[in-house]
Amino acid sequence: MKITDAKVIVCSPGRNFVTLKIYTDQGIYGLGDATLNGRELAVAKYLEEYCIPALKGRNPLNIEDIWHYFYRGVYWKRGAVTMTALSAIDMALWDIKGKMLNTPLYNLLGGKSRNKVLVYAHSNGIDLDHALESVAQELDKGFKAIRVQSGIPGLDHTYGVAQKGEKYEPATKGLPREDFWDTHKYLNWAPKLFSKVREHFGEDLLLLHDVHHRLTPIEAARLGKELEPFHLFWMEDAVTGELQEGFRVVRQHTTTPLAIGEVFNSVYDYTTLISEQLIDFVRMPIVHGGGITHLQKVAAFASIYHVQTGFHGATDLSPINMAAALHFDFAINNFGIQEYMPHEEIVNEVFKINYRFEEGYMYIDDTPGIGVDLDEKAAQKFPYIPASLPVNRKTDGTLFYW
Amino acid sequence: MKITDAKVIVCSPGRNFVTLKIYTDQGIYGLGDATLNGRELAVAKYLEEYCIPALKGRNPLNIEDIWHYFYRGVYWKRGAVTMTALSAIDMALWDIKGKMLNTPLYNLLGGKSRNKVLVYAHSNGIDLDHALESVAQELDKGFKAIRVQSGIPGLDHTYGVAQKGEKYEPATKGLPREDFWDTHKYLNWAPKLFSKVREHFGEDLLLLHDVHHRLTPIEAARLGKELEPFHLFWMEDAVTGELQEGFRVVRQHTTTPLAIGEVFNSVYDYTTLISEQLIDFVRMPIVHGGGITHLQKVAAFASIYHVQTGFHGATDLSPINMAAALHFDFAINNFGIQEYMPHEEIVNEVFKINYRFEEGYMYIDDTPGIGVDLDEKAAQKFPYIPASLPVNRKTDGTLFYW
Amino acid sequence: MKITDAKVIVCSPGRNFVTLKIYTDQGIYGLGDATLNGRELAVAKYLEEYCIPALKGRNPLNIEDIWHYFYRGVYWKRGAVTMTALSAIDMALWDIKGKMLNTPLYNLLGGKSRNKVLVYAHSNGIDLDHALESVAQELDKGFKAIRVQSGIPGLDHTYGVAQKGEKYEPATKGLPREDFWDTHKYLNWAPKLFSKVREHFGEDLLLLHDVHHRLTPIEAARLGKELEPFHLFWMEDAVTGELQEGFRVVRQHTTTPLAIGEVFNSVYDYTTLISEQLIDFVRMPIVHGGGITHLQKVAAFASIYHVQTGFHGATDLSPINMAAALHFDFAINNFGIQEYMPHEEIVNEVFKINYRFEEGYMYIDDTPGIGVDLDEKAAQKFPYIPASLPVNRKTDGTLFYW
Amino acid sequence: MKITDAKVIVCSPGRNFVTLKIYTDQGIYGLGDATLNGRELAVAKYLEEYCIPALKGRNPLNIEDIWHYFYRGVYWKRGAVTMTALSAIDMALWDIKGKMLNTPLYNLLGGKSRNKVLVYAHSNGIDLDHALESVAQELDKGFKAIRVQSGIPGLDHTYGVAQKGEKYEPATKGLPREDFWDTHKYLNWAPKLFSKVREHFGEDLLLLHDVHHRLTPIEAARLGKELEPFHLFWMEDAVTGELQEGFRVVRQHTTTPLAIGEVFNSVYDYTTLISEQLIDFVRMPIVHGGGITHLQKVAAFASIYHVQTGFHGATDLSPINMAAALHFDFAINNFGIQEYMPHEEIVNEVFKINYRFEEGYMYIDDTPGIGVDLDEKAAQKFPYIPASLPVNRKTDGTLFYW
Repeated sequence: MKITDAKVIVCSPGRNFVTLKIYTDQGIYGLGDATLNGRELAVAKYLEEYCIPALKGRNPLNIEDIWHYFYRGVYWKRGAVTMTALSAIDMALWDIKGKMLNTPLYNLLGGKSRNKVLVYAHSNGIDLDHALESVAQELDKGFKAIRVQSGIPGLDHTYGVAQKGEKYEPATKGLPREDFWDTHKYLNWAPKLFSKVREHFGEDLLLLHDVHHRLTPIEAARLGKELEPFHLFWMEDAVTGELQEGFRVVRQHTTTPLAIGEVFNSVYDYTTLISEQLIDFVRMPIVHGGGITHLQKVAAFASIYHVQTGFHGATDLSPINMAAALHFDFAINNFGIQEYMPHEEIVNEVFKINYRFEEGYMYIDDTPGIGVDLDEKAAQKFPYIPASLPVNRKTDGTLFYW
Repeated sequence: MKITDAKVIVCSPGRNFVTLKIYTDQGIYGLGDATLNGRELAVAKYLEEYCIPALKGRNPLNIEDIWHYFYRGVYWKRGAVTMTALSAIDMALWDIKGKMLNTPLYNLLGGKSRNKVLVYAHSNGIDLDHALESVAQELDKGFKAIRVQSGIPGLDHTYGVAQKGEKYEPATKGLPREDFWDTHKYLNWAPKLFSKVREHFGEDLLLLHDVHHRLTPIEAARLGKELEPFHLFWMEDAVTGELQEGFRVVRQHTTTPLAIGEVFNSVYDYTTLISEQLIDFVRMPIVHGGGITHLQKVAAFASIYHVQTGFHGATDLSPINMAAALHFDFAINNFGIQEYMPHEEIVNEVFKINYRFEEGYMYIDDTPGIGVDLDEKAAQKFPYIPASLPVNRKTDGTLFYW
Repeated sequence: MKITDAKVIVCSPGRNFVTLKIYTDQGIYGLGDATLNGRELAVAKYLEEYCIPALKGRNPLNIEDIWHYFYRGVYWKRGAVTMTALSAIDMALWDIKGKMLNTPLYNLLGGKSRNKVLVYAHSNGIDLDHALESVAQELDKGFKAIRVQSGIPGLDHTYGVAQKGEKYEPATKGLPREDFWDTHKYLNWAPKLFSKVREHFGEDLLLLHDVHHRLTPIEAARLGKELEPFHLFWMEDAVTGELQEGFRVVRQHTTTPLAIGEVFNSVYDYTTLISEQLIDFVRMPIVHGGGITHLQKVAAFASIYHVQTGFHGATDLSPINMAAALHFDFAINNFGIQEYMPHEEIVNEVFKINYRFEEGYMYIDDTPGIGVDLDEKAAQKFPYIPASLPVNRKTDGTLFYW
Repeated sequence: MKITDAKVIVCSPGRNFVTLKIYTDQGIYGLGDATLNGRELAVAKYLEEYCIPALKGRNPLNIEDIWHYFYRGVYWKRGAVTMTALSAIDMALWDIKGKMLNTPLYNLLGGKSRNKVLVYAHSNGIDLDHALESVAQELDKGFKAIRVQSGIPGLDHTYGVAQKGEKYEPATKGLPREDFWDTHKYLNWAPKLFSKVREHFGEDLLLLHDVHHRLTPIEAARLGKELEPFHLFWMEDAVTGELQEGFRVVRQHTTTPLAIGEVFNSVYDYTTLISEQLIDFVRMPIVHGGGITHLQKVAAFASIYHVQTGFHGATDLSPINMAAALHFDFAINNFGIQEYMPHEEIVNEVFKINYRFEEGYMYIDDTPGIGVDLDEKAAQKFPYIPASLPVNRKTDGTLFYW
């Protein structure tokens, strides 16, 4: 079996998606998600100029070899652009293998380890009342686990919070919007928010919260500690993760479970975090974390140290990544939870999906491979539109983490 | 797809082998090696009494779930008997999956990562001259890597060394033979042996040596240091491995590469050794180490820390394990070397093998699944014969490590 | 003195027990418990096929040598099946030595260090009221220390809790029952339970609780912290113990004392836990932990690091193990507490016991050796009946720890 | 002062270079190198599509703010593509600031700390004789420090070694060449090479060697130890650097100084290496390591731990990077050495340089800013030609590090 060609499809049904399509001499093709929010064309160029020519003629079944060809074989290893390109190749190859063997991806990963995949929803509100209302809405939809974000009194444009009457979508057309941030206001507010949420919705609901990289370790330690009475499922991205040792300070002060990694792209972003047991959940997505092949290794490593998965699953990644993640979620034992932010209906005009949500859980059908298809004609109707994630400043103007 | 039944086949073509055969409702069966040298019937009983009844009716494709059923689901985790039974189940399930998808096992593990698998041979002699002669014989057969053991002046029955005119085979019929040991004689002898081997055969030959658990850490440190001029590929089982921290002392004193694990059965036998980078090669065999499923995790973990595989492959394991190991060796990137001690010709009357040796390397064909079959009629001709590995004493009578 | 023969007796007065009986040329025989719940026949086979032939002719007084013969002398060290067989041999040899010297076992272990042995009882109830009632019942019996387990609102079949009107017994006939588990419900419930228990029974009662391996380290840290106001004597098996480092996270967050080890079988399961002072009590039973000989070393090691004993003593082990444990408890200085779950009356038809409970403490008489005898005729009336411990799944179907 | 526009210039005078040119409203422009060997167009696209639009209107003097805008402000931090783009921006801004203040860059970095900058040359030969000859040639040119690489007996295409009659240039047109590698041959050869070099050229010559990521930690430890008698200035990239802890093993065994980082792009690639004092020289180039702004911080951090600089300076980076590095080398106190591989003469048709080599040292003139200009017309004569660094396989076909 040989790869005959490949191409990159960039489309924008509501938001930008980059898809790699690999063709073989047996009529089978594979699809991989290559979307890197706000940096889409850099990945597309990387794939078109440097990967596709080198893919042709290779045996798509030798996934491990091809993986290392584009990892070890590239002098400049790791990084979001490089690893997103590699992830897309890897996903497409697993899709081909599943189709070629006529079996759904999860079966190649060890079969099913569970009947259904627990997902968490996003809720948010510009103030406490709206936040509570939003939680109630997600509960009505059947969600058992909900991430809660809310506007912070005195701050505009809080991360994760929609403007009035809008749906939350962080990336906006054109250049990055500049938001403002005040850590002290946030630290004072967050425990009050969760106190109210628990008061309204009781103790059975699984609650999550995303700090979005904005605290120092000692601030995160304080927040983790003050949130303990509200029993969070996890506190996410409490501290920016470049310095893994930063989590030692957080960990020694709080029993609030910790999740990190939606911006990670390699197991080496996790070695200290996992081997020192500083976190509880890995969130590195299939699409940025080296695909199925690399995440199998990360999940195996994590399993040894009591760490579970909780993959990123916002709408910045295409349905191909979501389906790949769900196959993975079904297959491994140390699955924890899956983020699920449903794509807009318009996305389904381009992508034909094989998964569905029901009563708090996701299900996937038995279509061979990853099982999501892309309608190229439909994709052409939605050409690429530049859009950016915001930039965040402290109120004095200091460039800060978004 | 459902498991309908399973049975255990114990046979002894030259030496004892235990095989698990799992039947499915689709006519496909899978084979797994369940051989635990000198404790064969304990595993057979474990499988027959506790595993086979619980296997019936399960979907053999859900390997990860079944693995955990017999690992987590058993209160008494780990240990050679338990893990050998589990390994046999796991191997048989992967064999079924490969046959069901009509593809060789390596393809389910990521495809081929290399063209051929480097193996090492065993050489041994009762004294220096015989040892050198034995190395020459293995070189003539085409081996590029050779493990060298020799008799120690003043000691009878050295580990790994055949009696005059016999082939080396550690297990003997009936009760264990009692050998004797003198560490000081050994430590004085081993560097001389390798000095002579290098003198005769030059620096290109890959040389290995098995200490067989008989040194304390500081003794192993001395030996490793004194062997440095002879550039061993590895020094194996330098110290007994129950206390993983024992290797810290060895490691800080020598750059001789270290291999361990042919008696291990879990990733938890390796956590300190790997995460602290105290070793260079994992040797835990498929048949005792939890099968393909668990070794994928161990190999992934090892790969993060620059540790490679060097699987046990002596004749105490059946051809099913050898074939499974070869598929694994072909598939992973961090393969190091494979032990290869060919089975006696008589073994092939029972097991139909799919691998061959040529010029220092092993090759495997594309038979679906693991690809080794067992002729049950032929097996019946070789009923189980109790046989034991030796017991080892110091010259003063102290019970010591064999 | 010589061992002339040995045999294995499997009987099932209510539940399965495996007993090793070693005969000597002086008419004295020794008894050792060899029961491994749910895996009984694997141990029996291991003993019959591989140990008994090698025991014959040996001097039963050389216990240390025989211990190492079956530990170091077996290539595949450790593991529940191997160590249970070794423990049974070791117990039987100590029984012989006591009988031969005409003295109770404790006298060979250093004599008596105390007048009575503190034990703890099991209480449980399907809900809070039943649990409180059960505690009251055990108090009425005179117990000073009580392990409390209760049903969790919203979950059936909680570990440690009897169904209505039944006595609690985890193993059930035939294949394993599949239970279901929800960590979040449990974590929310447990502190409420102990709050009520303290409210009803005051602060003097010693309270214990068994988590039964079902929490991750950070979850166990939370629970330990939230139970602090209720001053537990210990929190048991908070986390599965294969990764000893997992207890670092628990330990840094809570002062609730920690006990572990009823599924351990070697001092190497404890090296990190004890040398880093991560636990307070060792629970490895005589019958699985290498017998008297090995546990003397474990207890010695523990004593250096302020760790005490708290041996497993549920009804899955035979009265021989209970008596051996009591001798041990009387003899050592760093004894902490002894679990005591009385056997059904029917068990006493087979086993003649030498210990008794009175006002919260156990006493043992001066019968030589271990002091428990087995009526073989009576044993024959209760043939082996396959029975299994449950398997536990999360509510989504994920195979989990029981 | 405001940025009005920017553009990316890709040209290929002999090899590909990517240059960012930033224009301001004061007629001053700045140049930054953006070359990422073999991935040039991915960086160009990244800059054109995502950075240039966001640069317009900003005050180029606020370098720190702009740096964080493109680092913290980008959700997907780090990685070669991202950091090369950021480095180019940073370099161009420093160039503008120097020009605006009419002063050479070194003056903005603290002024001159030395009179001349020690550089090392590359020597190489396909065999020992050619290697010695090549060293002699570099000595004749006046170099005081020479990196020595040579062909390895029995291997073609060794890293760093030119084919007969050619100049060494790793990148070749079109798809990657596939090289082959044998670690054992290399390890046996390297000490012999340096023994001969010292024999011929005495002990005063500073000798360097590049392992190029091809050893495991224990192999690198052996090599470092065996090279000790030859007193290397450094052993470079002994082990691939994703796992920084890997250098612990190397470090504990040898006093050969260690350099690493030509493929690094962030201080977080160095935190363990520097804080644990595992290395002696940082080699991360200005062009990939976040520019002047980030390397000032890295150099400051390094200075605390006795670590010096030894910047990458091969011909894969443009003269703009070389000049920026030289300014940096002049200015800081903990400068160690600078790599200097002169560009082909044809490169000077496009880039007008301000530095010169004399008697083993480099000098730079006082042209304001970085001081290198680019002739856009000349650049147009050399359009981009796809070229790739090789891919490296072990002799059995395993994908390995190049």
